[in-house]
Amino acid sequence: MTVTCFGEVLLRLSPSARRLLVQADGVDLAIGGAEANVASALASLGHPVRFAGVVSDNPLGDRALAALRGCGIDTGHVARAPGRMGLYFLEAGSGPRPSAITYDRAGSAFAEAAPESIDFGGALAGARLFHCGGITPALGPKGVALARAAQAAARSLGVPICFDGNYRARLWAAWDNDPAAILRELVDDAAILIGNHRDISLLLGSDFSGDGEGRRREAAEAAFAAFPNLQLIASTARHLVTSNHHRISARVDARTADYQTEEIDVTGIVDRIGTGDAFAAGVLDGWLNGGDLATMAQLGLALAALKHTIPGDMCPVTRAMLDGFGAGASDVRR
Amino acid sequence: MTVTCFGEVLLRLSPSARRLLVQADGVDLAIGGAEANVASALASLGHPVRFAGVVSDNPLGDRALAALRGCGIDTGHVARAPGRMGLYFLEAGSGPRPSAITYDRAGSAFAEAAPESIDFGGALAGARLFHCGGITPALGPKGVALARAAQAAARSLGVPICFDGNYRARLWAAWDNDPAAILRELVDDAAILIGNHRDISLLLGSDFSGDGEGRRREAAEAAFAAFPNLQLIASTARHLVTSNHHRISARVDARTADYQTEEIDVTGIVDRIGTGDAFAAGVLDGWLNGGDLATMAQLGLALAALKHTIPGDMCPVTRAMLDGFGAGASDVRR
Amino acid sequence: MTVTCFGEVLLRLSPSARRLLVQADGVDLAIGGAEANVASALASLGHPVRFAGVVSDNPLGDRALAALRGCGIDTGHVARAPGRMGLYFLEAGSGPRPSAITYDRAGSAFAEAAPESIDFGGALAGARLFHCGGITPALGPKGVALARAAQAAARSLGVPICFDGNYRARLWAAWDNDPAAILRELVDDAAILIGNHRDISLLLGSDFSGDGEGRRREAAEAAFAAFPNLQLIASTARHLVTSNHHRISARVDARTADYQTEEIDVTGIVDRIGTGDAFAAGVLDGWLNGGDLATMAQLGLALAALKHTIPGDMCPVTRAMLDGFGAGASDVRR
Amino acid sequence: MTVTCFGEVLLRLSPSARRLLVQADGVDLAIGGAEANVASALASLGHPVRFAGVVSDNPLGDRALAALRGCGIDTGHVARAPGRMGLYFLEAGSGPRPSAITYDRAGSAFAEAAPESIDFGGALAGARLFHCGGITPALGPKGVALARAAQAAARSLGVPICFDGNYRARLWAAWDNDPAAILRELVDDAAILIGNHRDISLLLGSDFSGDGEGRRREAAEAAFAAFPNLQLIASTARHLVTSNHHRISARVDARTADYQTEEIDVTGIVDRIGTGDAFAAGVLDGWLNGGDLATMAQLGLALAALKHTIPGDMCPVTRAMLDGFGAGASDVRR
Amino acid sequence: MTVTCFGEVLLRLSPSARRLLVQADGVDLAIGGAEANVASALASLGHPVRFAGVVSDNPLGDRALAALRGCGIDTGHVARAPGRMGLYFLEAGSGPRPSAITYDRAGSAFAEAAPESIDFGGALAGARLFHCGGITPALGPKGVALARAAQAAARSLGVPICFDGNYRARLWAAWDNDPAAILRELVDDAAILIGNHRDISLLLGSDFSGDGEGRRREAAEAAFAAFPNLQLIASTARHLVTSNHHRISARVDARTADYQTEEIDVTGIVDRIGTGDAFAAGVLDGWLNGGDLATMAQLGLALAALKHTIPGDMCPVTRAMLDGFGAGASDVRR
Amino acid sequence: MTVTCFGEVLLRLSPSARRLLVQADGVDLAIGGAEANVASALASLGHPVRFAGVVSDNPLGDRALAALRGCGIDTGHVARAPGRMGLYFLEAGSGPRPSAITYDRAGSAFAEAAPESIDFGGALAGARLFHCGGITPALGPKGVALARAAQAAARSLGVPICFDGNYRARLWAAWDNDPAAILRELVDDAAILIGNHRDISLLLGSDFSGDGEGRRREAAEAAFAAFPNLQLIASTARHLVTSNHHRISARVDARTADYQTEEIDVTGIVDRIGTGDAFAAGVLDGWLNGGDLATMAQLGLALAALKHTIPGDMCPVTRAMLDGFGAGASDVRR
Repeated sequence: MTVTCFGEVLLRLSPSARRLLVQADGVDLAIGGAEANVASALASLGHPVRFAGVVSDNPLGDRALAALRGCGIDTGHVARAPGRMGLYFLEAGSGPRPSAITYDRAGSAFAEAAPESIDFGGALAGARLFHCGGITPALGPKGVALARAAQAAARSLGVPICFDGNYRARLWAAWDNDPAAILRELVDDAAILIGNHRDISLLLGSDFSGDGEGRRREAAEAAFAAFPNLQLIASTARHLVTSNHHRISARVDARTADYQTEEIDVTGIVDRIGTGDAFAAGVLDGWLNGGDLATMAQLGLALAALKHTIPGDMCPVTRAMLDGFGAGASDVRR
Repeated sequence: MTVTCFGEVLLRLSPSARRLLVQADGVDLAIGGAEANVASALASLGHPVRFAGVVSDNPLGDRALAALRGCGIDTGHVARAPGRMGLYFLEAGSGPRPSAITYDRAGSAFAEAAPESIDFGGALAGARLFHCGGITPALGPKGVALARAAQAAARSLGVPICFDGNYRARLWAAWDNDPAAILRELVDDAAILIGNHRDISLLLGSDFSGDGEGRRREAAEAAFAAFPNLQLIASTARHLVTSNHHRISARVDARTADYQTEEIDVTGIVDRIGTGDAFAAGVLDGWLNGGDLATMAQLGLALAALKHTIPGDMCPVTRAMLDGFGAGASDVRR
Repeated sequence: MTVTCFGEVLLRLSPSARRLLVQADGVDLAIGGAEANVASALASLGHPVRFAGVVSDNPLGDRALAALRGCGIDTGHVARAPGRMGLYFLEAGSGPRPSAITYDRAGSAFAEAAPESIDFGGALAGARLFHCGGITPALGPKGVALARAAQAAARSLGVPICFDGNYRARLWAAWDNDPAAILRELVDDAAILIGNHRDISLLLGSDFSGDGEGRRREAAEAAFAAFPNLQLIASTARHLVTSNHHRISARVDARTADYQTEEIDVTGIVDRIGTGDAFAAGVLDGWLNGGDLATMAQLGLALAALKHTIPGDMCPVTRAMLDGFGAGASDVRR
Repeated sequence: MTVTCFGEVLLRLSPSARRLLVQADGVDLAIGGAEANVASALASLGHPVRFAGVVSDNPLGDRALAALRGCGIDTGHVARAPGRMGLYFLEAGSGPRPSAITYDRAGSAFAEAAPESIDFGGALAGARLFHCGGITPALGPKGVALARAAQAAARSLGVPICFDGNYRARLWAAWDNDPAAILRELVDDAAILIGNHRDISLLLGSDFSGDGEGRRREAAEAAFAAFPNLQLIASTARHLVTSNHHRISARVDARTADYQTEEIDVTGIVDRIGTGDAFAAGVLDGWLNGGDLATMAQLGLALAALKHTIPGDMCPVTRAMLDGFGAGASDVRR
Repeated sequence: MTVTCFGEVLLRLSPSARRLLVQADGVDLAIGGAEANVASALASLGHPVRFAGVVSDNPLGDRALAALRGCGIDTGHVARAPGRMGLYFLEAGSGPRPSAITYDRAGSAFAEAAPESIDFGGALAGARLFHCGGITPALGPKGVALARAAQAAARSLGVPICFDGNYRARLWAAWDNDPAAILRELVDDAAILIGNHRDISLLLGSDFSGDGEGRRREAAEAAFAAFPNLQLIASTARHLVTSNHHRISARVDARTADYQTEEIDVTGIVDRIGTGDAFAAGVLDGWLNGGDLATMAQLGLALAALKHTIPGDMCPVTRAMLDGFGAGASDVRR
Repeated sequence: MTVTCFGEVLLRLSPSARRLLVQADGVDLAIGGAEANVASALASLGHPVRFAGVVSDNPLGDRALAALRGCGIDTGHVARAPGRMGLYFLEAGSGPRPSAITYDRAGSAFAEAAPESIDFGGALAGARLFHCGGITPALGPKGVALARAAQAAARSLGVPICFDGNYRARLWAAWDNDPAAILRELVDDAAILIGNHRDISLLLGSDFSGDGEGRRREAAEAAFAAFPNLQLIASTARHLVTSNHHRISARVDARTADYQTEEIDVTGIVDRIGTGDAFAAGVLDGWLNGGDLATMAQLGLALAALKHTIPGDMCPVTRAMLDGFGAGASDVRR
């Protein structure tokens, strides 16, 4: 059954071979955006996926649609509108140098879209899950309206909502707002929350900081208390060794149970962007297939780990690649 | 003696090998903008050139400055400001397919700049010529204010002004204005106008259309009558055979004389963008060196022709290359 | 209403910058195949398009599907099967050097497929047109069976058939057969034939060679006489000046009328492959929109001409690009 | 004195920058094949090397020959034949993602070749060593015949045979055979076997699995007992940390002595393919120069380690690079 | 029977996509040199070819050798020596912009080589033809000594000499010499001279300038009179339309007969470098196969024309490509 | 206040993707040279920087100047002269394979320049610091004269000198000289020395080898004793783990104090070239801003570490990137 994803689609432009922008005579072009990345991962794993959104009615919008379609995503409910595509420029780091993003997404056709320009009802018809998140409302009052309209449509059709926190401080800081209040209202609709104790701290105005698993369970329990519709919270923890080497673990909290994976080393990082979205998609893959907490956490961790090794924002990992993860050997598959 | 150029600097992104954007996984990055292109050409020919303007205080602005400096342009009077760089996407055509530009320049740091953010006095100190044109005022009321402030500074310092018409209908159509009135006021300051009979028709509200040289002289004389400061008008005529093959000629009109070149074939076109700016630079190179009308027209034509064969917006043609133009032979120079 | 296309999807591998294979350290990868190219063109023009076929159940098959989907083609009826993808290697020519193709398509998953592995009924449900052609039966007895099964399904569902002759002598020569007999049977089902007087000569065992339009009309009339279901015959004539410069014209014959375009020059050729498929798509675009013979011929000619300027086999020309063709000017579209 | 190598030459196609095939718009092209790789390494180290085999009589075969010749290999005894070149597609892994190979080698001109199409006598005239291995017989009954004919020629000319096990389960599984019986017959001719305890287990139908050096010596002794012509067995052990980081050691067993190196870390892996062939070549380099067991093992280990850092299948390591290995410092050589 | 070629091998570095060096962040690397180019063409056509010369004993020399070997040239008589490889930088022109070469070849290992460092006797053993030319003596007194030693060896072994004039004014101007005297002595050994009426004017101190065929025959006859060993003179005439479009014709003069081809258009020029060497090779191919004057001239013209369409200095045109030239059609070869 | 740097500018040519030169069909082009690299780093950090030197009066010299200018370096005092640019070829290593440099810099326009060809007085006017080093005198007697003239000018203008040892044994070995004597004379002028205990051992003819910090302090004290003008000595220590992983520390010695940093791991090395120059620039950045020993050492270490992750010789690290170093986190900066 279909998963419907909703959000902004972005063009990413990044110099190759770890060049800085100031050195670049060319840039690789990729298509991304948090919800599009989740959509790409679920579609690559074989789930029917529909995307809702707005892209520019120009060749850049055509390019974005081609990327979504290439993954097998149904783009029949992506509206076209005048205006610009949101862009971002990525300088990929290495070793002691962090990756750096220069955003150029303000005023995009998506950010300026009116809720009625998108046929949410059609996009959600017969869907088993609706995936959205915290970037859309961060774009401004129009983004809040879009997010509310999308979730209202899902609620009225009885489609469960997965909300990915994706807190972007810089976007919220660009206009006058109360992010916690806005996000609380949106999370209140969600059955699944992708977010860690920092996201929950922000939502609830409490401080759940600290490293231990106990602290994370406390945060989860507070969120379950605050949001009665919420059934599942999924999150990763990430320790940065260098730009090419991270350590990540995953956990999934339900109301009465939880599962925390071991921390694994992810070395040889090719592209860190979209790894959180791959995690969300892995968890949702488990959920859609009726997996238990451990399965969801491990699928999320595996998909996130694999995404670190693949260029681009999207996650074209197939079921076979995912099944092969962590089988112990990593020699050439012939 | 120094030439000061003023205008917006743009980043250009274009797929290689004549791909369309919808097919592109990467784009070449070049720096351009009409006045920056003129600056690059004059600096490459050995003139001291200063650029005035505003670029973003981010890595894209750094990239733009690096390109200007790489040509030998003094960027000490380019201000940095928050905001985005104007961009455009180019799909290079071939044969029967025209090149196509998708602009994404609205709301740039330059277009939003206040006149006082630029030290026009410093940029113009001791300059022998000030080059600007009709794109800046087309950007909106703030652009008009920038253009007026720049020209006012030149007037007050007694620096002659070269104004390149560069009429961009789409930009003027995007806000409420009377382009002819705005441009007339600006052209009224100019000693040199780069523009053809169509530009003059627009400025004067008359119709000088038609193919003959006589018609062009009529237009020039009308312009000289309307603009008492104007000493020189330079223009090209272009006939399009295919996207890879144009025919161009040049003319320069003074108040009491004119010169019209033969039409030449330009084949093997690699990059048509910036060829008009190269023409302007060739004319100004002649003017700066005290050349007569024929010299100015022929240098303009030669530089324009050569620019068609060089990738990018800018014009890195050296004096030796320019001197070698049209020597009859085009075999390998060993 | 949906157009259903059926045929083999091929991977194309070609050195860039006019290199020969013997010089190549890398090759560009594109997806093609005659019917896939037609599908790409129709989808890019906005028609709903479904593809039927078989691609390998490996990453190369994934790549092929991604390309079809990227154009907006519905691939829900493309079966996956063990076996190889058909490949071909292209050395693009220039000037006096012709382009050269090295085929490596024998024994592909498609060529080995059994008719029952494809759900032709589903692929054709509700379709307004079925597009197929002469390459599939040329692949061998299994290909003949596939072609027959496909057309039988279209007949039984009352979907009109467009058959593109696409005679490939080398494929027919590789096994024991009577191509004319096989093709006659298949063309007998068709309402539309893409093919010129040479194709008709082959089908009917007559000789309609010769240069004039009269000869072509004679051939068409003979075909209409031989194939009572046939309503329309569309063809191009191509004169080769050099590898970068062809002259092409188009004609469409109906039973009682015909239309022949002027011959136009196509210079600056970037990629000649797939231009015949683009022609077919242009004719079908006119047919689907109820255009008259002249419209069909001119759309076919325009789409073919534009395709020569775009890299790859597929034809990602949008409606706006097609509408802009031949408007007289080919200067940069800003 | 000349070394003659015999086997299939393959074209390898792989996306750059760790892309997956589904993301690729181009692939790097390299030439390989186990025995060709050994030949390339020995030739690069300065040994006269002759290659025997069959490549296609098309541009891909030309490309393969150009690569062999470029290394300095004498290709005068490589036959040309109609038919396809064997191909394989490589997706290079990183960190937790293993590299993956998609083979497309069935039905190649080599696999279909008759023994009499190759002048083994000429290729082996005056040779000091004949290198072949277990992939050729795995290709099918024709491959077995080729392998037998090649070894018969070497036997009759008194040229010692080095046989590299190179067991490829997928190839053997594709047709009806008894691999152990076929390989036993071939290994029985060999003076040198490249293969570890797993290869020997397969050959002898015994189980020598286990990690210790003792176990490996037991396997070697069993092989020496079973194959009276065998004088030397060389093998590596590889522990996989990640796709970019392996640990490898080498050992060489003679009838009455053996040598086992330390395990070394190989990090920064650029290309794992062909490293086993580089190992074999290093051992043979030692053998050809009359080195002792330790020298052979250390040269094999060094060449294998260096090959991990070089793109492509072949091993263009020069004598100077090999001599410099492990000198302790790895700073820039100026 | 073997052809032995002798001369300097150069590395060529050139920006791609018609960029200027001042714009380049990378350069394509190719191997060339007039005599190496002839060798590559003859070897690609299937002639056994041996190269004599000196290349650096560093990785650049390895690269040069790999290129020669890749064409199938026997490099067993190329000496290695300390010192640098000669380089040149090429900026490929387009349309009205000529290609430009920046030489950096002074002081190369070849230019500094002593005659005794090359085993001319071995290189020439059993050869049917020796090909050399006028660049080697232009390098300086050491170059003259090399050229003399090489020709002396050929004379003493009775190997006919083909001498390609290849007059390079800049090289001769760099040291104190009398080029006509030096070249006369060398041409006096030759059976075949590649050179036109301008070369002969220089050699003989007469002026044979002028456009007509008659003038060229006069020049040839004067050369035959001056050089009693000379049997054949081959030359091209080239008219430059643009950098991408030349017109060329060929002629071959014998003592009592001559043959002049039609002038043909060569459009779509990809790489003009090495086209004169390809012409020489085509003539020699005819000569080696016992062709008449017309055959030699037409093969030379065909190979030269084809070379214009292939990147690099060398000429990898196969017999099949050469045979296909001018068959009238230039459509895709499938 | 301005820093003036003086030295040779080199072109670097290196295959991408860790290829060897023997495998390369193209090379990346970068501009470097020890003092140019320091200049690039200081200019990128915002210091006014002037460069003095000589580059070729050809397109390669234009390219070099464009790179210097692109960083914001004032090249008004770089002379142009006939002759070649110094080049070097870099094969970047990985893991166990060291990077390798093939120099081709002999006889460059710089190495042949007469001191009077450079206006040192103008280049140093008003400068706060003069940076030069030990490569210029290593080029030969003319280089020694250049170095002496440059330092004499600085002395006479009272500009403090920073001298970077940069001992290149291969250059000194190429001609007859006493490096220690020549360098002692030059270092005697310096206020700042970039060099470690090995450099000091060479200068003083003593042996300060050994690993401990004490030994390094001893060396520094001996240098302070020998060179009364010397105020500061800065050096790094580098331990090589693999080609991609180094450990580095930095120290700065003053006459009465010193500071030694911790050793840090630098992994994910992209380009090791120019990292010593980046260190020098970091130290000088601290010195120019009046920082204490710890600040100088830490800035040097940080800039060196970051440079390892950036392609090319130059160091385009901005103030913001430098400030962000070592802040603990290395996740994506959004």
